[in-house]
Amino acid sequence: MEKKITVLPGDGIGPEVVASAVRVLQVIGKRFNHTFHLGYATIGGAAIDQHNNPLPDETIEMCENSDAVILGAVGGPKWDNNPPELRPEKGLLRIRKHFDLFANLRPVKAFPSLLDASPLKREVAENVDLMIVRELTGGVYFGEPRMRTENGAIDTTVYSTAEVERIVENAFELARLRGGKLCSVDKANVLETSRLWREVVEAKKKEYPDVQVEHNLVDSVAMKLITNPSHYDVVVTENMFGDILSDEASVITGSLGVLPSASIRGDNFGLYEPVHGSAPEIAGQGVANPAATILSVAMMLQYSFGLKEEAAEIERAVSAVFDDGYFTADLSRDGGRILSTNEWTDKVINEIDTSF
Amino acid sequence: MEKKITVLPGDGIGPEVVASAVRVLQVIGKRFNHTFHLGYATIGGAAIDQHNNPLPDETIEMCENSDAVILGAVGGPKWDNNPPELRPEKGLLRIRKHFDLFANLRPVKAFPSLLDASPLKREVAENVDLMIVRELTGGVYFGEPRMRTENGAIDTTVYSTAEVERIVENAFELARLRGGKLCSVDKANVLETSRLWREVVEAKKKEYPDVQVEHNLVDSVAMKLITNPSHYDVVVTENMFGDILSDEASVITGSLGVLPSASIRGDNFGLYEPVHGSAPEIAGQGVANPAATILSVAMMLQYSFGLKEEAAEIERAVSAVFDDGYFTADLSRDGGRILSTNEWTDKVINEIDTSF
Ligand SMILES: CC(C)[C@H](C(=O)O)[C@@H](O)C(=O)O
Ligand SMILES: CC(C)[C@H](C(=O)O)[C@@H](O)C(=O)O
Repeated sequence: MEKKITVLPGDGIGPEVVASAVRVLQVIGKRFNHTFHLGYATIGGAAIDQHNNPLPDETIEMCENSDAVILGAVGGPKWDNNPPELRPEKGLLRIRKHFDLFANLRPVKAFPSLLDASPLKREVAENVDLMIVRELTGGVYFGEPRMRTENGAIDTTVYSTAEVERIVENAFELARLRGGKLCSVDKANVLETSRLWREVVEAKKKEYPDVQVEHNLVDSVAMKLITNPSHYDVVVTENMFGDILSDEASVITGSLGVLPSASIRGDNFGLYEPVHGSAPEIAGQGVANPAATILSVAMMLQYSFGLKEEAAEIERAVSAVFDDGYFTADLSRDGGRILSTNEWTDKVINEIDTSF
Repeated sequence: MEKKITVLPGDGIGPEVVASAVRVLQVIGKRFNHTFHLGYATIGGAAIDQHNNPLPDETIEMCENSDAVILGAVGGPKWDNNPPELRPEKGLLRIRKHFDLFANLRPVKAFPSLLDASPLKREVAENVDLMIVRELTGGVYFGEPRMRTENGAIDTTVYSTAEVERIVENAFELARLRGGKLCSVDKANVLETSRLWREVVEAKKKEYPDVQVEHNLVDSVAMKLITNPSHYDVVVTENMFGDILSDEASVITGSLGVLPSASIRGDNFGLYEPVHGSAPEIAGQGVANPAATILSVAMMLQYSFGLKEEAAEIERAVSAVFDDGYFTADLSRDGGRILSTNEWTDKVINEIDTSF
């Protein structure tokens, strides 16, 4: 297989973790006989510095000519006081919207050897294996009007039926491939958009008799994600609720540094990035945890290229390195050995290479 | 002191837990020489059944002639398929709005003898003592337009500067009386209403040099409330974020059944209710946990009547009964004795009485 990939290292630790993930990707290419052509471009703060634009036209163009995009992270104190249009995260919002990446997939799965770092009791966290499907290009993130008024401010949550249908369908398909359970999250006792959401789920479920569906209110899910996270399989929700719940869920396993994400749109194109941010306070020190970005590359192989075996091999290797007791500094624990970003990546690569 | 209180038992376990709380209130009255005049009225499902209106005029009128309101809980499967205007929670939304109860106070404090029931590790949960201040009468809950459109639906988040100012001021005052720390939660990287919110906090903080202020994004707080809940003292946020975060925070201590709340407005009037719902599945069995409602009565004594000693006495008594190993069924644990709602209330009353 031959694929073109745009790489957007971004800011902070972005370039470091992306470099690791690219090394792993190339090893996978060698081992499984694929050719990955990489092009590099800027986004976020780095793009503001070079082009005065958090998402330059060159970047968009390169992505348009690619099969998938790998992103590091954006943001940092340097740009915190910029006007909204010149903030790094604007690059993120714009790339999602431009490429219509309406489905954000956020898997949360416990690595047994990391559970000590979880704030939850082991028995609560240990069997967690859920996927949050967040609508990513609608809702209050993009609705108009959004502005200051004479004596205050307003934002608008907008959803069309078609926008809800496509994300809900996506979630049903994922539930069918996974555990067959779907939890749809809304605030139907208050919001019109939520009542629409619930109706769409109710209508769609007739096409998926094999998927068990429940509706739950966002406040109630915010509780149950912590009290009983292993209850969940696929969780689907709108943009703002998804932002909050997916970050909340990311603490369950005790290791934000290992969580990947995919932002996709129905065809094979997608953008893959770690859940963690740009961590400017440790940038450039070679200590960042590259696991989340490496696992995001695994998601790319699976969701954009249909390379399931290759994806599984990366996941196996990452898991094996943890089980062998090798960690980066963020996961430091009794009895574990702390490695640098590059050393830890070497371990993953050795795992993949020696298993030929 | 002489006070008039409207009691709204509501649905499900509401009447049972309210009866317990009223008994405790009357004992406090006797011991500290206060007279509490109680009037009973309907709200929620019970009011729909009797008056075809989740908040009848009689109820509003009685509340208007009272110094404070005690509420049990509303809702149940019987009314789940009613049209929006005839749903029990509409009574709740309308009473908040009618009485302009813009500040919802949700304290979360660990009872050491309950920590085993927490999903969090003991060392994470044990020193938690925070207060979420949720704006309760604005935002997307009440903003217009909110409606179906030709091809979808919209909701509107609206805040006036004055609405933000009064809740933020309220939170600053509370922070000053508590630990001197205030975390303001918003999504200022996306929402106009959040940018307004942040500006108001920045302006107000000049009047409170003794309060240490931080701004944090809602997604980030959703994580930190679980990874490091003892970081927080007072947390202030808008209506929808407050709904989600306060319910999320309610799981920290392992016992939703003991969390009280107050909904207030600047003068002394307020509405006091447990955080938990109407729990229809256990209604009428005499097994519900009355602690949250009893502690809500303590909040009423403190916030509406300025009776701090009386409030502290209730809190002490509740805590002592837990420490003595007496629980209701929801908190069942090794070595604890399970009592009925009434038996458990008797223990609390004995604590208060014998300490004359
Ligand atoms: C940076 C911000 C705009 C973004 C979002 O809210 O979508 C981030 O929190 C995320 O979840 O990717
Ligand atoms: C019942 C519902 C409308 C209400 C809310 O969202 O405010 C409830 O969840 C609460 O927090 O009191």
